[in-house]
Amino acid sequence: MVNLNQDQWNLVYNVFSFGLVSMLACTVYTLVAQARVLPKYRNALVMSSMVTFIAGYHYWRIFNSFSEASDGTKVDLSGAPGSFNEAYRYVDWLLTVPLLLVEVIAVLALAKEVSKSLIMRLVPASAAMIALGYPGEISTDQNTQVLYGVLSTLPFLYILYVLFVELTKSLDRQPAGVAATVKNLRLLLIATWGVYPIAYILGMGAGDPSANGFVGVQVGYTIADVLAKCVFGLTILKIARMKSHAEGMAADH
Amino acid sequence: MVNLNQDQWNLVYNVFSFGLVSMLACTVYTLVAQARVLPKYRNALVMSSMVTFIAGYHYWRIFNSFSEASDGTKVDLSGAPGSFNEAYRYVDWLLTVPLLLVEVIAVLALAKEVSKSLIMRLVPASAAMIALGYPGEISTDQNTQVLYGVLSTLPFLYILYVLFVELTKSLDRQPAGVAATVKNLRLLLIATWGVYPIAYILGMGAGDPSANGFVGVQVGYTIADVLAKCVFGLTILKIARMKSHAEGMAADH
Repeated sequence: MVNLNQDQWNLVYNVFSFGLVSMLACTVYTLVAQARVLPKYRNALVMSSMVTFIAGYHYWRIFNSFSEASDGTKVDLSGAPGSFNEAYRYVDWLLTVPLLLVEVIAVLALAKEVSKSLIMRLVPASAAMIALGYPGEISTDQNTQVLYGVLSTLPFLYILYVLFVELTKSLDRQPAGVAATVKNLRLLLIATWGVYPIAYILGMGAGDPSANGFVGVQVGYTIADVLAKCVFGLTILKIARMKSHAEGMAADH
Repeated sequence: MVNLNQDQWNLVYNVFSFGLVSMLACTVYTLVAQARVLPKYRNALVMSSMVTFIAGYHYWRIFNSFSEASDGTKVDLSGAPGSFNEAYRYVDWLLTVPLLLVEVIAVLALAKEVSKSLIMRLVPASAAMIALGYPGEISTDQNTQVLYGVLSTLPFLYILYVLFVELTKSLDRQPAGVAATVKNLRLLLIATWGVYPIAYILGMGAGDPSANGFVGVQVGYTIADVLAKCVFGLTILKIARMKSHAEGMAADH
């Protein structure tokens, strides 16, 4: 049980609603933008739509779960049926984080073997990263929390290695401007993904979090999700449009 | 009544939510992918969308039914109104399993008489398989359970015969790579369909299942459904794209 004051409760409630509508709007936007890129880039774009669609579903569930788990401004975090269900985030990440990485590879339209090799390493690593984080998140024992935090960091470092060392080799064959935008995309990814371990560490310790800790974790996760999924997806659209124009699509499309 | 502990209850709840959103996302993805295959393969693709749409609806119902049939972590399995409704799965399978099989035949674009002959045998066999399983599933008498388990296995074996013996004769006229992918598709089908009889046997016996038995059955069915419908549908899309390219659709589509 965490006892929020009225402003804190309203802040979390409204931030969840903000996350929900951002995901839905971004889904519709990227779906409608399909025709504005060449066919070869549409798969990357639709993956971005799926990421925000799946995240929109989970924010709808999280929003309702928060509301139903609240008695006034007290929120039930016991894990019992009807309590606030943090696991929605992990189910969401398990589906969306591998998709986000595949999306980056797909929009670059690299040679088939290069794409396949990158995807075959990024997808299992990202799934392992999320799956290893969850036992730590639900544990109330600090040793378990540290153990799974460290275990989950290993695939995260491997993903960074693949994105910053392996992927860089392929960037010089991209049209002007695209390489720079991909670099920005990677920085956005690092900056937003960095929020998750911070929120994880904020939530560590035995027993229930403080009111400030709870608000910090929920607001932090939501803002990071909007950046890592919506802003990320719009950047994918930008790259797909730059590449489409470089390959002869009319610039007013 | 089955008495779960808190972790078991949460696992089942979150697995149902995972199944629900996977089906919905896959539906949108395959609908959006229509333009990426030649018109003759779009019917197979939209059948895949219908399979995951119907399954998404049923997971939404199953998710709500589980939640509403729960009093704390105790789940009512009595069959009375308001108890956990296992029949949603059978209604789902009765609709989706024949569709899945028609989808396989449709994507191969065989000669008309061959298609028709295969469909006329697969659809009634699959409907019989599901319909014969249900009386065993709801029975609490072990003899009845065994009887209907065996009866349901007969059409299942017939389906395997049609897919592995009859269908094989048509595979050598498929473009390179397609025959291999169809073989993988059949293996996926066998591997996932094998889960259902195992879950059926796990659920056998008089009276209510144990907590572990109940969790095993629900998690097993859900993972099998996601593999047999989403991963299966994405494989159908892959086959349709390979065939479209072999028949002259621009490779960047």
